[in-house]
Amino acid sequence: MKIEGIDLFYVALPTITRTADGTQDSLVVRVRTDNGLYGWGECDASPLVSMAAYVMPMSHSNIINISEALVGETLESPGDVVRLRRKAGEFGLDIQQLDHAVAGADIAMWDVLGKHLGEPVWKLIGHTESHKKLPYASVLFGEDPAETRNIATSIARKNFRAAKFGWGPMGRGSLKDDVALVQAARDGLGPDSKLMVDAGVIWGDDVDAAYERAVEFADLGVTWLEEPLRTEEVGAYKALSDRVRANGIKIGIAGGEGADFYRSADDMMTNAGLDFVQIDVGRIGGITEARRVADRARELGIQYVNHTFKSHLSVAASIHVFAGYEEFDLTEYPSGDSPLILGLTAPTGIFRDTEGLIEAPSTPGLGVEVNLDAIRKFQRRVHIEIDGETLFASPEP
Amino acid sequence: MKIEGIDLFYVALPTITRTADGTQDSLVVRVRTDNGLYGWGECDASPLVSMAAYVMPMSHSNIINISEALVGETLESPGDVVRLRRKAGEFGLDIQQLDHAVAGADIAMWDVLGKHLGEPVWKLIGHTESHKKLPYASVLFGEDPAETRNIATSIARKNFRAAKFGWGPMGRGSLKDDVALVQAARDGLGPDSKLMVDAGVIWGDDVDAAYERAVEFADLGVTWLEEPLRTEEVGAYKALSDRVRANGIKIGIAGGEGADFYRSADDMMTNAGLDFVQIDVGRIGGITEARRVADRARELGIQYVNHTFKSHLSVAASIHVFAGYEEFDLTEYPSGDSPLILGLTAPTGIFRDTEGLIEAPSTPGLGVEVNLDAIRKFQRRVHIEIDGETLFASPEP
Repeated sequence: MKIEGIDLFYVALPTITRTADGTQDSLVVRVRTDNGLYGWGECDASPLVSMAAYVMPMSHSNIINISEALVGETLESPGDVVRLRRKAGEFGLDIQQLDHAVAGADIAMWDVLGKHLGEPVWKLIGHTESHKKLPYASVLFGEDPAETRNIATSIARKNFRAAKFGWGPMGRGSLKDDVALVQAARDGLGPDSKLMVDAGVIWGDDVDAAYERAVEFADLGVTWLEEPLRTEEVGAYKALSDRVRANGIKIGIAGGEGADFYRSADDMMTNAGLDFVQIDVGRIGGITEARRVADRARELGIQYVNHTFKSHLSVAASIHVFAGYEEFDLTEYPSGDSPLILGLTAPTGIFRDTEGLIEAPSTPGLGVEVNLDAIRKFQRRVHIEIDGETLFASPEP
Repeated sequence: MKIEGIDLFYVALPTITRTADGTQDSLVVRVRTDNGLYGWGECDASPLVSMAAYVMPMSHSNIINISEALVGETLESPGDVVRLRRKAGEFGLDIQQLDHAVAGADIAMWDVLGKHLGEPVWKLIGHTESHKKLPYASVLFGEDPAETRNIATSIARKNFRAAKFGWGPMGRGSLKDDVALVQAARDGLGPDSKLMVDAGVIWGDDVDAAYERAVEFADLGVTWLEEPLRTEEVGAYKALSDRVRANGIKIGIAGGEGADFYRSADDMMTNAGLDFVQIDVGRIGGITEARRVADRARELGIQYVNHTFKSHLSVAASIHVFAGYEEFDLTEYPSGDSPLILGLTAPTGIFRDTEGLIEAPSTPGLGVEVNLDAIRKFQRRVHIEIDGETLFASPEP
């Protein structure tokens, strides 16, 4: 089959708030083939900036848009997806946004190929089994310990056995304030749940501030401290990780969601002393590149975890990546109540079984479908003209 | 003074060809202040994708556009530029294109601050002197040795004492073909000129192919072999560099233009075994970040060189960055004949003195001015609407 077209859908809630909540908008990408099939993918990225990477005029041989690279191409085998992903990367070598943007098309190509061949994506990318994963509810801290405790209690009531709290007031007050927040999360979850803390790069390059928290949080049974430092502070990460290990502090250091391309993740894994590497399939250029990171993490003895704060389209894409690796047993699972994100794939989705676990579907493609009514309801209509000629107009779902 | 507005000008030649020639279009950024001053900057990036990063709607607290971060802010001191550059980075933490796009605003902020304080940018960023640099003409290989020799001859006639040839057929044929191309460039330039070769990442991760060329090119007096491998192949770069050194081959390994942010450059410098690091101020987020790389290069004993393939606005911004470092004595100097790029700052520019050298101007700001007639002549009018409302319309020059 051939790729006949790529459709870009910018969807958003009517009101966007200034919180660290990625479920307020999305860029959904549809790949259409000449045999009437559709594949779907999602980017975790600025929708408008990423759309521009699909349609912008050529600047020179290394700035050519993603649609130009893919439309009209043959898609019959996994090797074709890998080849086309590479082609888009070469055409867009000097487009910085390339990885964030092409992620949607890459995921959609795997999805449509799976439907074409009647295979789940995890098989197409070479896994022989799909192992169950323990999903952790991923939520923001409340504005204070009391609100945080309430959030934790409601997560426990939803039968989550693991949760990650992040951003909000964490790191904006004193060490004592931070400990009180984490204590409240622990109290609300109960003693047996896994608890992770996401500091949202708040301590910049301050290893001491991060280390003090690591020590205190370890006492509260926190599995990992995530993004204590800015992604670029690889040396500081290493110093932190070395100090945590040298002093026998029982907490992992996690990071990697800021990795926009394979080498950036590899740099973090090789040089930052990470225990957990967290990869967003919707940022790092799709399933093809995320799979490379998972393989490398395995070689290095680092636990691969997905970073996911979008719809079940992204949840599905994320778990196919490492479905076959039994030891990578944790998975981030957005648990907010954004009607956009919940509705986008309704009634399909990646849902927890009776044990509270999830797994990559064994149906063809990603195993979730996009709800066109949700797209219609939340679509933002974009129109781009250059010199009076239409370059892009939002398509009909 | 306060930043009153940021104007984005997409300029392009009427016809864009599929060559590795970055002088066919540009994104020019103007920062206006409330005391009637203007500063100018330029991005080496897809204009439309970068523009979107200035105007796109907010997605959440880490995807907020550059204009929102900067307009209305106070700009009185070098510390303010550093603060605002960081603020734009925090607002746009999850916008991959951020660095390519914000480069223009960063450069423009330094320019307007220099005009405000009556100081050249090199002084504002902490240099105490502006040392002259030897510019090398940066050109593409001809389609064959004969055409390449003609190009080299014409460069020698223009009194360039150094030249870099890149892309074109290099690496697309046999080792013998590649040597013939470089031999032709050497013949045309004469024996005393510096000659550099840019392979345009053609050998991917093939260390053997790159090493064979390094050996042959060294015999032709080539100063460096640039981007023999893909930027992400840091391990392969290191293997190549180690082999070149171990065997006493007299050629440097150069790379880094693909570094879109500080850590990426630092990764290349620390782990890839580079002798020369080439930084594009219009990609790596502007003068502020490029300066950090130059400082780090100095610590590591690596030669910093600018990568520049745009107008004299970029040439100026590039040399201010390392003006004070006498040992960094080479500078890339676009020498094509694009009327867009030549006209953009005419009649001002960074021109060679009687010795064939250039230096960062000591007049206030960058020391070059934008020609508004050139903008008018080459401007592409962009209009972006979302849900029927205008989000962006190209401004008048």
